[in-house]
Amino acid sequence: MKGGRRGPVRRRPYAGRVTHYDLAIIGTGSGNSVVTPDFDDKRVAVIERALFGGTCLNVGCIPTKMFVYAAEVATTVRDAARYGVDAHLDGVRWPNIRDRVFGRIDPIEAGGRYYRVNGPNTTAYLGTARFTGPRALVVDVDGREEEVTADQVVIATGSTPVVPEPIAASGVRFHTNEDIMRIDELPARMAIVGGGYIASEFAHVFSSLGVQVTVITRGDALLRGQDAEISRGFSDLAAQRWDVRFGRTVAGLAQQPDHIAVELSDGLTLETDLVLVATGRRPLVPEGVDLAGIELHDDGRVVVDEFGRTTADGVWSLGDVSSPYQLKHVANHEARVVAHNLVHPDDLQEFDHRFVPAAVFTHPQIASVGLTEQQAIDAGHHVTVKVQKYGDTAYGWAMEDTDSIVKLVADRRTGDLLGAHLMGPDASSLIQVLIQAMSFGQSAKTLARGQYWIHPAMAEVVENALLGLEFD
Amino acid sequence: MKGGRRGPVRRRPYAGRVTHYDLAIIGTGSGNSVVTPDFDDKRVAVIERALFGGTCLNVGCIPTKMFVYAAEVATTVRDAARYGVDAHLDGVRWPNIRDRVFGRIDPIEAGGRYYRVNGPNTTAYLGTARFTGPRALVVDVDGREEEVTADQVVIATGSTPVVPEPIAASGVRFHTNEDIMRIDELPARMAIVGGGYIASEFAHVFSSLGVQVTVITRGDALLRGQDAEISRGFSDLAAQRWDVRFGRTVAGLAQQPDHIAVELSDGLTLETDLVLVATGRRPLVPEGVDLAGIELHDDGRVVVDEFGRTTADGVWSLGDVSSPYQLKHVANHEARVVAHNLVHPDDLQEFDHRFVPAAVFTHPQIASVGLTEQQAIDAGHHVTVKVQKYGDTAYGWAMEDTDSIVKLVADRRTGDLLGAHLMGPDASSLIQVLIQAMSFGQSAKTLARGQYWIHPAMAEVVENALLGLEFD
Repeated sequence: MKGGRRGPVRRRPYAGRVTHYDLAIIGTGSGNSVVTPDFDDKRVAVIERALFGGTCLNVGCIPTKMFVYAAEVATTVRDAARYGVDAHLDGVRWPNIRDRVFGRIDPIEAGGRYYRVNGPNTTAYLGTARFTGPRALVVDVDGREEEVTADQVVIATGSTPVVPEPIAASGVRFHTNEDIMRIDELPARMAIVGGGYIASEFAHVFSSLGVQVTVITRGDALLRGQDAEISRGFSDLAAQRWDVRFGRTVAGLAQQPDHIAVELSDGLTLETDLVLVATGRRPLVPEGVDLAGIELHDDGRVVVDEFGRTTADGVWSLGDVSSPYQLKHVANHEARVVAHNLVHPDDLQEFDHRFVPAAVFTHPQIASVGLTEQQAIDAGHHVTVKVQKYGDTAYGWAMEDTDSIVKLVADRRTGDLLGAHLMGPDASSLIQVLIQAMSFGQSAKTLARGQYWIHPAMAEVVENALLGLEFD
Repeated sequence: MKGGRRGPVRRRPYAGRVTHYDLAIIGTGSGNSVVTPDFDDKRVAVIERALFGGTCLNVGCIPTKMFVYAAEVATTVRDAARYGVDAHLDGVRWPNIRDRVFGRIDPIEAGGRYYRVNGPNTTAYLGTARFTGPRALVVDVDGREEEVTADQVVIATGSTPVVPEPIAASGVRFHTNEDIMRIDELPARMAIVGGGYIASEFAHVFSSLGVQVTVITRGDALLRGQDAEISRGFSDLAAQRWDVRFGRTVAGLAQQPDHIAVELSDGLTLETDLVLVATGRRPLVPEGVDLAGIELHDDGRVVVDEFGRTTADGVWSLGDVSSPYQLKHVANHEARVVAHNLVHPDDLQEFDHRFVPAAVFTHPQIASVGLTEQQAIDAGHHVTVKVQKYGDTAYGWAMEDTDSIVKLVADRRTGDLLGAHLMGPDASSLIQVLIQAMSFGQSAKTLARGQYWIHPAMAEVVENALLGLEFD
């Protein structure tokens, strides 16, 4: 094991208790899972400034999907007449939905906290950590500073919402993903600032539950990280459901007696009842990393190598604070790799960032993996593309689907799949066969005909997309 | 090319026109797709006694799924309150649903017919064919008998509903899958006879649309071909939604002035408004196969070898009439193989019946591939099994799911996946990664960790099931 025992810890300016550990972990999202049975006989410090379980459990993937499912149900009710089923929506019980979600999540957070506070070999520090030197930390626990040193340190501090300056400076109350899901009642109107997946998912949730949603986005499309065809298609559908102000930013907010005035960069002002800021999340780097020899990228992320090592000996990092992907499944993977590497210094594993999929749980749902068409062209591939409509397959037909697509990007010479971009029902399930194919090096040429596809299951849209690719 | 030109056709007892073809196909379901561009310069007879497009298009998979989707919508409306969404079902417009379905299907049937009747190299015989000798057929076209001989013949005549004798003998009007979807109005009550997938899918459709459904089944469970755990679980759920009479058969039917009396084998009589017979489908073998040297299995199927050859030289068979699987995706596969083999006598392809999946589009949905647990044990495998609840993964949790499972069966020594059995949302989509793994020989050990699974997409239930398998 590398570590602090090899030399003195240089800076101990604080008078408080100094405790040395085998491992200190900052952040209890994916970082929490680094404490594997390999550490059963080791001393581990777990440092958390806020909620145990991190972004995903408390303010991200998990609760949002619970709201998304309620939104899907409401959407199905509204659309039922298309299928000869006459139904209507009497109302939405927001407090019930919210309490159902957090009635399940909050006990998990509390359980995770209890387990670490009372764990047999872990010591929990409930406060904010800052580096004071190599593998030396001070944790501010309710104003009392506790000094922690460790042989190895894992930075897993995640990310925090970006708030545009005019909004932060306005003094007007606004929400982010960290508190919007706990509001007391649904507003009549909501202005959502941002055009990425967080903005889009919340726009879907709140509009489906009856809120009049305005989306304000700097770009000329939503979900600009997606393949252009998906981004454009989704933006067109979004503009039918929401008031989307493309190419605008927020110039200022003003609290009025009965509404919030949102001043836009185009000079127009709109009235709303609640402002949700969803302009992305930035890495949440502990203070003092410079004192610890930990370098950062220009975008603020902690620099790590393929094994998760920072530029400081014995200090590792994973998840949103250092990863190129702000995705829980990537953070989980990186946590598994780092957990292994911490105890196997002579057998280091590498992060696998080859085929990282992601989904947006909107309506329609979106899922993607690999290169967009433009990225594949830019990378010099001889590109073949197929856009298969769900509506031209049996199940999509049964659903009267008109908008949904599977877009595949492949290399026409090698037969390799390069990217998959789905927009439609079950997208996040259907894409798995393509993730699997790409991850295991299965050729697009053999996928369609080397296995059965249940007729008339929705997966036939993937089969037909594969059959539509043209190879040399 | 093998064929009739090598010798005289022995029996020509009919005075009508005798026409010789390169290829004669009996049945226009999957058989229709045998006419590939390879036959552009050949003479092809296409014989159809009923609807063009066969069972799947007209009275099977395609229309049923359109009704199933409407049923799913109605079910979602009914269950909405669980998710804090108050909705109610005002009613179901059956004639609109029916006309939406057949308004799309009937023109396809008519188009297929027109294309074959007027096709450049096909001659359509609209009547029932019987064999009169080797590769010699007589087709009864509206009472006029037309004689057809061909170098090669493809039997693709499909299957037809089995009707229990007491029902057939009763003289009381009943329905099968072939006409139930076109009824004028929904009955208040429906008795469904049978316990397989056809009975279950229609019970789901009609009960969801408001019909009071009684299911009468000989067995002690529904879907007895499934893994025992799925069959039992589904039967328990079914018994909550429908009046299911297990271990009963129908002893007789009697038409009463305002209802049909269904006499059961247990001596009880129940009243209903409509009887749907769904006790399976049997191979629909043309008459005269004995005259043509075509042998049958004991269960009535045409005997074929792995290349689709019957026991008669130059006569092929595919689909329900000969296949061990009454499934459209299998029939399509067999049609592709036979289409190839017809023109490549020196390079015959084999049917691939290794990993044949199937789905039942009920609520919950069911999908399966490979061996059941019992079959795996009986086959001598060292079996490891994992039953993963959807409800213990994030998306299942968001759906408040309590009943849905993924059951995997694997060999604990080799790491091979042997079977997968899913009951729950998206089952027919989620199973595809397992079909793919089994078909391409991917080990269960590597599947879970060799690729990313989007968090928190529903596919995580498959990931977790894989991680739950224990290997030696």
